[in-house]
Amino acid sequence: MKKYSIGIDYGTLSGRAVLVDLATGDEVVSSVFEYPHAVMDEQLPSGKKLPDNYALQHPQDYLDVLKNTIPDILNKSGATPEEIAGIGIDFTACTVLPVYADGTPLCFNDKYKDEPHAYVKLWKHHAAQKQAEIIYEKAKEQNESWLKRYGDQISSEWFFPKILQVLEENIELYHETARFIEAGDWITWVLTGKETHSSCLAGYKAFWSKKDGYPSNDFFASVNPELGEIIGTKVSENVISVGSKAGELCEAGATLTGLTQGIAVASPSIDAHAALPATGITDSGKMLMIMGTSTCHIIMGDSEKCVPGISGVVEDGVCEGYFGYEAGQSCVGDSFEWYTKSCLPKSYYDEAAAQNINIHKLLREKAKKLKVGESGLVALDWWNGNRSILSDSDLTGLILGFKLTTKPEEIYRALIESTAYGTKVIIDNYEENGINIIEIFAAGGIAEKDEMTMQIYSDVMNKEIRISASSQSCALGSAMFGAVAGGAFGNIKEAASIMARVKDVLYKPIPENVRLYEKLYNEYKILHDYFGKGGNDIMKRLKEIK
Amino acid sequence: MKKYSIGIDYGTLSGRAVLVDLATGDEVVSSVFEYPHAVMDEQLPSGKKLPDNYALQHPQDYLDVLKNTIPDILNKSGATPEEIAGIGIDFTACTVLPVYADGTPLCFNDKYKDEPHAYVKLWKHHAAQKQAEIIYEKAKEQNESWLKRYGDQISSEWFFPKILQVLEENIELYHETARFIEAGDWITWVLTGKETHSSCLAGYKAFWSKKDGYPSNDFFASVNPELGEIIGTKVSENVISVGSKAGELCEAGATLTGLTQGIAVASPSIDAHAALPATGITDSGKMLMIMGTSTCHIIMGDSEKCVPGISGVVEDGVCEGYFGYEAGQSCVGDSFEWYTKSCLPKSYYDEAAAQNINIHKLLREKAKKLKVGESGLVALDWWNGNRSILSDSDLTGLILGFKLTTKPEEIYRALIESTAYGTKVIIDNYEENGINIIEIFAAGGIAEKDEMTMQIYSDVMNKEIRISASSQSCALGSAMFGAVAGGAFGNIKEAASIMARVKDVLYKPIPENVRLYEKLYNEYKILHDYFGKGGNDIMKRLKEIK
Repeated sequence: MKKYSIGIDYGTLSGRAVLVDLATGDEVVSSVFEYPHAVMDEQLPSGKKLPDNYALQHPQDYLDVLKNTIPDILNKSGATPEEIAGIGIDFTACTVLPVYADGTPLCFNDKYKDEPHAYVKLWKHHAAQKQAEIIYEKAKEQNESWLKRYGDQISSEWFFPKILQVLEENIELYHETARFIEAGDWITWVLTGKETHSSCLAGYKAFWSKKDGYPSNDFFASVNPELGEIIGTKVSENVISVGSKAGELCEAGATLTGLTQGIAVASPSIDAHAALPATGITDSGKMLMIMGTSTCHIIMGDSEKCVPGISGVVEDGVCEGYFGYEAGQSCVGDSFEWYTKSCLPKSYYDEAAAQNINIHKLLREKAKKLKVGESGLVALDWWNGNRSILSDSDLTGLILGFKLTTKPEEIYRALIESTAYGTKVIIDNYEENGINIIEIFAAGGIAEKDEMTMQIYSDVMNKEIRISASSQSCALGSAMFGAVAGGAFGNIKEAASIMARVKDVLYKPIPENVRLYEKLYNEYKILHDYFGKGGNDIMKRLKEIK
Repeated sequence: MKKYSIGIDYGTLSGRAVLVDLATGDEVVSSVFEYPHAVMDEQLPSGKKLPDNYALQHPQDYLDVLKNTIPDILNKSGATPEEIAGIGIDFTACTVLPVYADGTPLCFNDKYKDEPHAYVKLWKHHAAQKQAEIIYEKAKEQNESWLKRYGDQISSEWFFPKILQVLEENIELYHETARFIEAGDWITWVLTGKETHSSCLAGYKAFWSKKDGYPSNDFFASVNPELGEIIGTKVSENVISVGSKAGELCEAGATLTGLTQGIAVASPSIDAHAALPATGITDSGKMLMIMGTSTCHIIMGDSEKCVPGISGVVEDGVCEGYFGYEAGQSCVGDSFEWYTKSCLPKSYYDEAAAQNINIHKLLREKAKKLKVGESGLVALDWWNGNRSILSDSDLTGLILGFKLTTKPEEIYRALIESTAYGTKVIIDNYEENGINIIEIFAAGGIAEKDEMTMQIYSDVMNKEIRISASSQSCALGSAMFGAVAGGAFGNIKEAASIMARVKDVLYKPIPENVRLYEKLYNEYKILHDYFGKGGNDIMKRLKEIK
């Protein structure tokens, strides 16, 4: 009998289920379901307008992913429920919703259909900035030790700022909420009938650590007396290691998916984190860059180090037994896309159309021919602020070196180079703070498709880069966790040895380019520190003037 | 009998003659002749390739301007030669050529048809950079007092660097040259049969001053022994005040133009300088900005002050009896044009086409709607280096403040604003160094057509701006000098009182914008000083890496 596991990857706009062959790691079939409500950032389904910076979702969409994609992959593959060893899940985070004691979302209650706070707050809901600042101030004031694990900063995207926003803006709804829960944990609850909180989600988004648990209720009471008993009441203390068995498919879960009761379900990952085991990374020293609209830089270490400017370090945060470090760039592919939409002249579009190729391909072909440093341009990659290592969303992008002869492909290449310099700042920061980087891997759309960019990254970092072979590496990693939870492998390392894979391609630094990029990076770093570390706070002042 | 004068404006690509009515200042008719050889920057007429940074012209083109345009304006207007009181000329400068003792250009000699140094070196010939540096070093070493009149710098565009290049690269041709002469002075010689050197050309481009004359032959000998007797031999010492009567139309000049002998010819101006009397500026305290691809900022004062970073101060340099100060921005309209060609997305061109309007008009309409500071962008206007007050051609452009939501019209407006800030640096520098600016006027294409830009300039400078009413203000100013030389007026002030004019429009600063632009200008100035005055020489280092 064939053996499979199922990985379910919940992204920002759709959910994807992948059926993976445990003997080979082959992704046999997959199925995608786009969320009917997508991201609600202007209005609720009722038509009610939303304030600025809101980004909500509807939990029914997550259920519909299960109802549609799982039967579809069984149907397309001919696999039977008996052949499924386990299910793993990854989810965007922090994506949080209020539920009743039985797990029913408050927004399913008709009386709340017009109430924004009853819905899911998506990771990119940015309306809790004030609350993030309040919690940060209190934590600084009381010298809370957990703050340093998060690079001494608190994002408005995280768990407790979002909860505090609900409390401050609708106390009645807050009181009616039995649990605030990550959507990844909620969907696990739906499948297993048991509530758990994954160490990955709790660790990166809710200040939890294996050693110390959550911050104390005394701390939360100091932020707001109403929060005084939140841990253990509205927030579950039942934290279990990411990828460990969260439970087995319950009757309701089986009905929803068309599977049979008893199939193991693994505790969920954050989406990007699941890509590590899929690329064969199950221990320390190997950094994975998940490169898309933005980039995550995740690496495991053997011990907890204090690294400034990272998004977080979490024990058992990526794989059990290791400390998972996460850093990030908030704008990578997004700025390339902005460039082609907002700055690229007509003649280039005409040329791409005449050659019948994608505009990025045309630009890469032209940019590839440029010598390193030829354009005289250097950019700061802060079109969407800087996540690591400056943790400053008020920073903005810069391009320096324009001449009347400056060509579009030169600007395009400078933007790509700036993101490579931004990555070098992050890896240098890891290494300076004791995180040893032995190998570098990359996954995601840019890593897969864009050879020029990957060569530039290799040259800038003076490091070899390996590329994930799966185009659905998050779902594959989740399937691996599912297989381990179901007992098909003894641990994630064993699963990875069979199921993970990297491409045959290896990007190697070209010595001549390395030498030149070293000089250019030095220039970038001077600008980075001048504009990012208080030498000239013009970017903040311009925001104020605005 | 009607009375007219003729202004002849020699530009970079064409020459224009304008017939002006002395009683009203009306520009009755005009005629343009495009230089058949245009700018020779790649090859000579013989096909011989030119080195980098060359920009040559053919003097036959200048003669053909006379032969074509003067008969044309007489013909079109019905004016008779007897009705012409005088002729004035303005010319690009420093535009220099080697001639024989009778005034014949060396390039008319067939043996030199393949020799680049026999032709006219146009103002933007940039191949004498090395020679400019040699002369500068010697002048610094010997503490030459004239250097401070040129903001302590020597441009490769000027007279002696161009001559030294000929000497160093073709000594035989150098020896065969009787005179090196500005093209404006040469065409005056052609018309009058007499060689003179205008104080405007000699002063701004050849280190001459009314008080001290040229630098000493001892100085030139220290630069190169071959230059030891240059003043008085290969360079004429017969310097006369700009606009004064250089002579009368000689037989050859009359034959060439279809006019009659004896008509007064005025000593030539640099093209931009002639726009001052045309705008009614004939004394001190009124600054004229001549705004086109680049901008000149010319103002007269009552005494000689040492102003750092200007292009020069010359007694009798603009109008007799005053000290003419010139500063400049090397890239204004050029960067707006670069932007629309190199950075503007297809959708904007489509929109302009659909509305059947010019792309700049579309951009202005969109940019006009933006509030001051709304974009969060600040730029440094150094796409073509910085002429004043930093005098540094290695500086490059910068844009700061990009976000993923940054729109093309925001960038366009930031570029316009950056040139306004650059102008404010220049006028602040004038005022800090004792040059009193009472009124500001503007001429040129941008001043005439672009209301949004002129309002921004008024807001940034917090000054009122008046606009020249003539679209051919250089030719009009030259015609005024011609009229004075011919005795139709006692002096240029009298001529201006009848013939000069400004538009009815007056740009007035809007207090709310002034307040915001003050803040934005402060930010520009911090960047200006940091990148331009040694805080961070990244722009130079990037050129070196290149």
